[in-house]
Amino acid sequence: MVKLIYRFNNFQTQGNPKEKNILGGKGANLAQMAKLGLPVPPGLTISTTICDYFYKNNKKIPKKIVQQTKKEIAIIEKITKKKFGGTLNPLLVSVRSGSRVSMPGMMDTILNLGLNDKTVIALKNNTSNGRFAKDSYRRFIQMYSNVVLGVESYLFEELIENYKHTKGVIQDTELDENDWDGLINNFKDVIKQKTKKNFPQDVNEQLWGAISAVFLSWNSKRARTYRKINYIPDHWGTAVNVQAMVFGNMGENCATGVAFTRNPSTGEKKLFGEYLLNAQGEDVVAGIRTPQNILTMNKSMPKIFQQLKKIFKQLENKYKDMQDIEFTVENNKLWMLQTRSGKRTAKAAIKIAVDMVKEKLITNKEAILRVDPNTLDTLLHPTLDEKAEKKIIASGLPASPGAASGKVTFSADEAERLKEQMQDTILVRIETSPEDINGMHAAKGILTARGGMTSHAAVVARGMGKPCVSGSSAIKVDYENKLFKSGNFEVKEGEVITIDGGSGKVMLGKVPTVKPDISGDFSTLMSWADKYRKLKVRTNAETPTDTKTARDFGAEGIGLCRTEHMFFDEERIISVRQMILSKTPEDREKALTKILPYQKSDFFEIFKIMNGLPVTVRLLDPPLHEFLPKTDKDIDDIAKELNISHHDIKSRIIELHEQNPMLGHRGCRLGISFPEIYQMQCQAIFEALAECKKQKIKLVIPEIMIPLVSTAAEIKILRSLVDKIAEKFQKANSIKIKYFVGTMIELPRAALRANDIAKYADFFSFGTNDLTQTTFGISRDDSGKFLNDYVENKIFNKDPFVSIDDKGVGELINIATERGRKQKKTLKLGICGEHGGDPASVEFCEKAKLNYVSCSPYRVPIARLSAAQAYLKKK
Amino acid sequence: MVKLIYRFNNFQTQGNPKEKNILGGKGANLAQMAKLGLPVPPGLTISTTICDYFYKNNKKIPKKIVQQTKKEIAIIEKITKKKFGGTLNPLLVSVRSGSRVSMPGMMDTILNLGLNDKTVIALKNNTSNGRFAKDSYRRFIQMYSNVVLGVESYLFEELIENYKHTKGVIQDTELDENDWDGLINNFKDVIKQKTKKNFPQDVNEQLWGAISAVFLSWNSKRARTYRKINYIPDHWGTAVNVQAMVFGNMGENCATGVAFTRNPSTGEKKLFGEYLLNAQGEDVVAGIRTPQNILTMNKSMPKIFQQLKKIFKQLENKYKDMQDIEFTVENNKLWMLQTRSGKRTAKAAIKIAVDMVKEKLITNKEAILRVDPNTLDTLLHPTLDEKAEKKIIASGLPASPGAASGKVTFSADEAERLKEQMQDTILVRIETSPEDINGMHAAKGILTARGGMTSHAAVVARGMGKPCVSGSSAIKVDYENKLFKSGNFEVKEGEVITIDGGSGKVMLGKVPTVKPDISGDFSTLMSWADKYRKLKVRTNAETPTDTKTARDFGAEGIGLCRTEHMFFDEERIISVRQMILSKTPEDREKALTKILPYQKSDFFEIFKIMNGLPVTVRLLDPPLHEFLPKTDKDIDDIAKELNISHHDIKSRIIELHEQNPMLGHRGCRLGISFPEIYQMQCQAIFEALAECKKQKIKLVIPEIMIPLVSTAAEIKILRSLVDKIAEKFQKANSIKIKYFVGTMIELPRAALRANDIAKYADFFSFGTNDLTQTTFGISRDDSGKFLNDYVENKIFNKDPFVSIDDKGVGELINIATERGRKQKKTLKLGICGEHGGDPASVEFCEKAKLNYVSCSPYRVPIARLSAAQAYLKKK
Repeated sequence: MVKLIYRFNNFQTQGNPKEKNILGGKGANLAQMAKLGLPVPPGLTISTTICDYFYKNNKKIPKKIVQQTKKEIAIIEKITKKKFGGTLNPLLVSVRSGSRVSMPGMMDTILNLGLNDKTVIALKNNTSNGRFAKDSYRRFIQMYSNVVLGVESYLFEELIENYKHTKGVIQDTELDENDWDGLINNFKDVIKQKTKKNFPQDVNEQLWGAISAVFLSWNSKRARTYRKINYIPDHWGTAVNVQAMVFGNMGENCATGVAFTRNPSTGEKKLFGEYLLNAQGEDVVAGIRTPQNILTMNKSMPKIFQQLKKIFKQLENKYKDMQDIEFTVENNKLWMLQTRSGKRTAKAAIKIAVDMVKEKLITNKEAILRVDPNTLDTLLHPTLDEKAEKKIIASGLPASPGAASGKVTFSADEAERLKEQMQDTILVRIETSPEDINGMHAAKGILTARGGMTSHAAVVARGMGKPCVSGSSAIKVDYENKLFKSGNFEVKEGEVITIDGGSGKVMLGKVPTVKPDISGDFSTLMSWADKYRKLKVRTNAETPTDTKTARDFGAEGIGLCRTEHMFFDEERIISVRQMILSKTPEDREKALTKILPYQKSDFFEIFKIMNGLPVTVRLLDPPLHEFLPKTDKDIDDIAKELNISHHDIKSRIIELHEQNPMLGHRGCRLGISFPEIYQMQCQAIFEALAECKKQKIKLVIPEIMIPLVSTAAEIKILRSLVDKIAEKFQKANSIKIKYFVGTMIELPRAALRANDIAKYADFFSFGTNDLTQTTFGISRDDSGKFLNDYVENKIFNKDPFVSIDDKGVGELINIATERGRKQKKTLKLGICGEHGGDPASVEFCEKAKLNYVSCSPYRVPIARLSAAQAYLKKK
Repeated sequence: MVKLIYRFNNFQTQGNPKEKNILGGKGANLAQMAKLGLPVPPGLTISTTICDYFYKNNKKIPKKIVQQTKKEIAIIEKITKKKFGGTLNPLLVSVRSGSRVSMPGMMDTILNLGLNDKTVIALKNNTSNGRFAKDSYRRFIQMYSNVVLGVESYLFEELIENYKHTKGVIQDTELDENDWDGLINNFKDVIKQKTKKNFPQDVNEQLWGAISAVFLSWNSKRARTYRKINYIPDHWGTAVNVQAMVFGNMGENCATGVAFTRNPSTGEKKLFGEYLLNAQGEDVVAGIRTPQNILTMNKSMPKIFQQLKKIFKQLENKYKDMQDIEFTVENNKLWMLQTRSGKRTAKAAIKIAVDMVKEKLITNKEAILRVDPNTLDTLLHPTLDEKAEKKIIASGLPASPGAASGKVTFSADEAERLKEQMQDTILVRIETSPEDINGMHAAKGILTARGGMTSHAAVVARGMGKPCVSGSSAIKVDYENKLFKSGNFEVKEGEVITIDGGSGKVMLGKVPTVKPDISGDFSTLMSWADKYRKLKVRTNAETPTDTKTARDFGAEGIGLCRTEHMFFDEERIISVRQMILSKTPEDREKALTKILPYQKSDFFEIFKIMNGLPVTVRLLDPPLHEFLPKTDKDIDDIAKELNISHHDIKSRIIELHEQNPMLGHRGCRLGISFPEIYQMQCQAIFEALAECKKQKIKLVIPEIMIPLVSTAAEIKILRSLVDKIAEKFQKANSIKIKYFVGTMIELPRAALRANDIAKYADFFSFGTNDLTQTTFGISRDDSGKFLNDYVENKIFNKDPFVSIDDKGVGELINIATERGRKQKKTLKLGICGEHGGDPASVEFCEKAKLNYVSCSPYRVPIARLSAAQAYLKKK
């Protein structure tokens, strides 16, 4: 038979502290403390299984549980020498929820249960403290009535406020025993009026009312919402902990407090916390009295303080982690009420992990697993000063972390102009396009009204390590009048705003930021991660700045150098446009000849920085129309410059227009239609290599990548194009050059035909952005319109553009890996989509046995840590 | 050892007539005739294997072949009692190509080989016909010099023309022996001058020159182009046939002719052909003399005629097919030179197949396999009168067969206006959108400047059975000035043009058409096909007209009823737009309430016609912006009608704009975001069913189809939505209704997750249009820009939007079928993409074990025949 109720006390503890899924987090920790012999008030845990049963059986508690609980209450009675409902020495209990993971404030708790008109008298007598007893009773009535009986809190609060007004006092503490007595009667009247019943005097009725209420609170609206946001499954359910009450407010030899075993903000190994003498737990939180630093307890309660210190050490040794603790001192006796791994900042997480290795508490492998890679992000970007005042005017998606302030500007040109004047700007656009790249470079941050976490703005901003808030749908951008509105706020061009790309918040004015301090512990942890990971970590970069940043962050190569970004430079775009507007291959080649030296020098700079590490160069990918001007004015400018008629340019733009550019004339399809473009790009790569050789720079082996392949024929044709250029170049220059040719696997058909394609490819790089788009048939740019509906309906547990969809896209990656390697054992496999910097996706890549992941420069450390974790978890 | 040379004559024939891949078509047929004992001049066939060898070995003929050929020539000498190069009775031979499939006119032939300055004298003496001998020699020199030596033909033609001019004659026949003698000397001079060598007198040198030239002609530019167009693999190669010459021009007891054993145009069982007395084969073709009807031979050469008739019957009995025959009569002796299955019209194909079953020549299974399903198309649409004069002004893709004439109109509204005036129109658009539907209905035919074989215009036109020429890129449409230009032609609105959707031609003025006569043979053949096919054939239809047409053509249900087409009707579009412009679910429901009765009556009409057959109704699929107005004027109209500001409508249009609508907020994503739309549609379906019940119409079981599913959660949610509406409806109306719920599998992820999805689906319908788009990552609307490059580079052997790509898309269909049926044995599987009417794709569906195919009404007979063929081929 499955055990459903678990006893915990200092004599016998039945639950296995490791089984959080059965005991809930709180129950497991109580069981652990009890097993360690720490002073834990005795109690019982009703397992999460019953929650499921409760919902499946018309919200009834099974009889067996009622009987077993009675038995357990008797055990508590025996240990405490008190009696539940007893009129001499009554046992009071707390009833608390406890689910597998912490859902702070989401579910209900009831304290002081067991009080009624009779037991309250006993409590008064035993404590010789009438005010304490009555105050406890009225607190219980309030809590119980609200949680179990559904009487709204404000009704009680109003009564108290009115009474205090009449009596002419301000603080609750100014009310005495009689005052509370009177209020208790008033409370009872309200309850009778609202529920048509008297407040229950039967303590068992109280108990089962409370337990049911805790189960019911699992499905409260706020709990469901919290779970939705945090991807917590509904079927987990909550456990219920029933535990003997202890009181920190029975006199001056009582106290209550919360503490962390180490500083959760800095990680410093020093007790951190606060306590209040003669108080209940909620008083510490409520902030009516100012709690004292825990260290002062050394003077006020020296024995207890020493005992606490010892317990803290014991708990850290057991959990091998920093603990977040609650305790109560009742008449000079310490009671431990809760322990759990404490939440901490990224900085603290790293310091604690590294320190604990030094202390030999954990191994460096464990240390690696302790730090959530996603939190590293906050260490790599400037963050808003937490203490500063903020006027939040809108919010959007936290698309690229970091904070930035600057003058609002609505065009890339204006952003560039202001940058020349050394002014900081925030580029605000409905959405961005590749034409905005220069403006994005010039701006300190980017804010868009449309577009998801993987929209153009988001992807480019992350690549640049620039803060970005995307899809802030409350914002109405009015380009014409150069302003944007958000609710009642109207922000004009030139006004200063601040964006926080970590939280998605948009604020008025300049909010001060603090520069992060990447301590030595950070690099210590990273060096351990590097030791254990199998996956190589490369970066997606195409500018010397990005390349340099990525190298500093530990990138071991470039996994994706997007050559088209190089085309947008102001000096070159004119030749690029001339190339596109060419009517014959000859004219096109002429224009390409002008672009060649630029590309060559781009590659040279990158090769120089990478100094022998592999560089994957993707040949031109986006449809040509992306490079053409969009406004009539721009068209006029080009027309003048190229001596072509406005009409001709417009015709070409119309001709190149596409219904679905994502599925259009792009990628290798351009290489097939206009081989001269790819020829020029290969020529530039080889010339850059030759230049490196001349300058005695360590040679990289370029990996030339053909994008958007869906058939073996495409790569076959284009590979032979590359080989021909290489052969010609080597002959003409009498030098030997080493290079690889491979392809992106970013279409379902490419994955399925990987066996054929691998014949002509030295490597595969999974382009998971496009592979996700085509596998799901979802355009990431347009997904904003329904992604919310999809998350709300739990159709997507996670945005598949953020974390690899392992069941669909993942199967295609596995198919391609298997078929590709079957054809060619030496095939090198990597991933270069946005997913390369997502820890869950990195874990997938490790399982899929890829050779490397590639991500934006600022995510390189995250990928390094994730890769190590993935490898360690697999083992 | 592999045999490389095959002898054929009336004593011994080595080749197996079935091995066309070795002997080539001509060689196989010669071998067959020889085996039948028909009078075939003796000869030899060099197998196609040597062609491959030839190209792989530096274009050399292996020595072994030279030796064996010598031996075979000796055999021919023995039979003919002539000597190759002999000066008494010289053997002359023809050297002809012969590949696996006929490539008419693509490769080279040399006749009269073996003539030189000496043998020509012998020929003269033996035939007592000096003019014949010299004429034969000069023909040989011309042919050989052109084909083998590369001397251009016009040089010889010029010499003859000049000579005739000098002599003052017009016809070649007016030149005598001496004239040819002189010209032969002039020819030789030209050859010497151009090739620096004398014309070869060695007959063996002549022979090997000719054989090599035939092999070389396999790779001539025209042959390669022909193969590319007709998807003939390059590696097949050609065989070479060397055969003793016979002459139909040695005197009045000689003749030459061509004949069909039945009429290739009508299929009538009656000899059909023509001949010339005293002539060479090329004279029949050249048209200088008018050939006589073959039937007159009964008088001119009665014995030969009887012999021919007998042979024709013998050949038909052997090949069990109508034969296309060439023969020569040399000195009253009949020689058979060629036989092959004759090309025929669709009408003839059907009549011949049905007749031959009646004649017990073939079985009805064989008859089914005899008719190319694609050709049926020409029988189902009116066709242009072949005899009429035509002024072709442009050409495009043959997007939907049939011919139509009408006044050019550039807008859907104008087409409708003219239709009310009973005027025929051709709707000319750059491309069409769903808004043009009414205009397309009103017009007699559609012509677009952009868009492929599966563009909106093409798909809708085929669905309507309306002629369409799409992607006619030569056409420049000028909406503003209401005209289009094509080359030097300018066609204004109101001028009449004719389009031929079968050939893709656009003609000025009205070209008369003929209505096809679907004879009883057609339905006989169809009834046999129905007997043998396993696949059910449904149709894609949503209007009563289409539904009726499809039923008449034998559709067994509707596989795809696209409800959005019903939204475009003028009366309803306003409510549809109101619905889209609604800001709250309540407003949306109000607008939907107005649409409900229309949808109900649509469904009722369709259910009535289908009379109990299954009907698959696809819930709303396209993105909402497709329904919104596009021009400022239209926006104004709507604004007035709905009392909304122009600005508000424009904002909504901008808000709904999508980068890649194909991958946007459409399909079931609409159902998730706006469940009230799907609710209304289900309500309409159920109300229509109730109406049928009331009117005692046989009830269909509707199959409600959820489009664009990529996760099980989507179909789970939407299925429960349908079930809820059904339950409510049944309760409210106290009736029982039967229905199925299923999904389209049109995204790669849906195919991969078929196991999960099948839990909530009663049927899968493969939407191969979108599945092809997403699997390849190609937008069919945009593919026109590179599809040509792809076909030219042999990347696509077939347009994957026309014939299912069995290696990619096909694998996904197989995966989905297997996984879906594993989850649910009873799962019904069909296909409803455009591919459903493509014979090769139907064959794929039969292999994939689907239950049905669904296609546009006019392709239903094609699908029926294809399904039968697929089943018979599989067995």
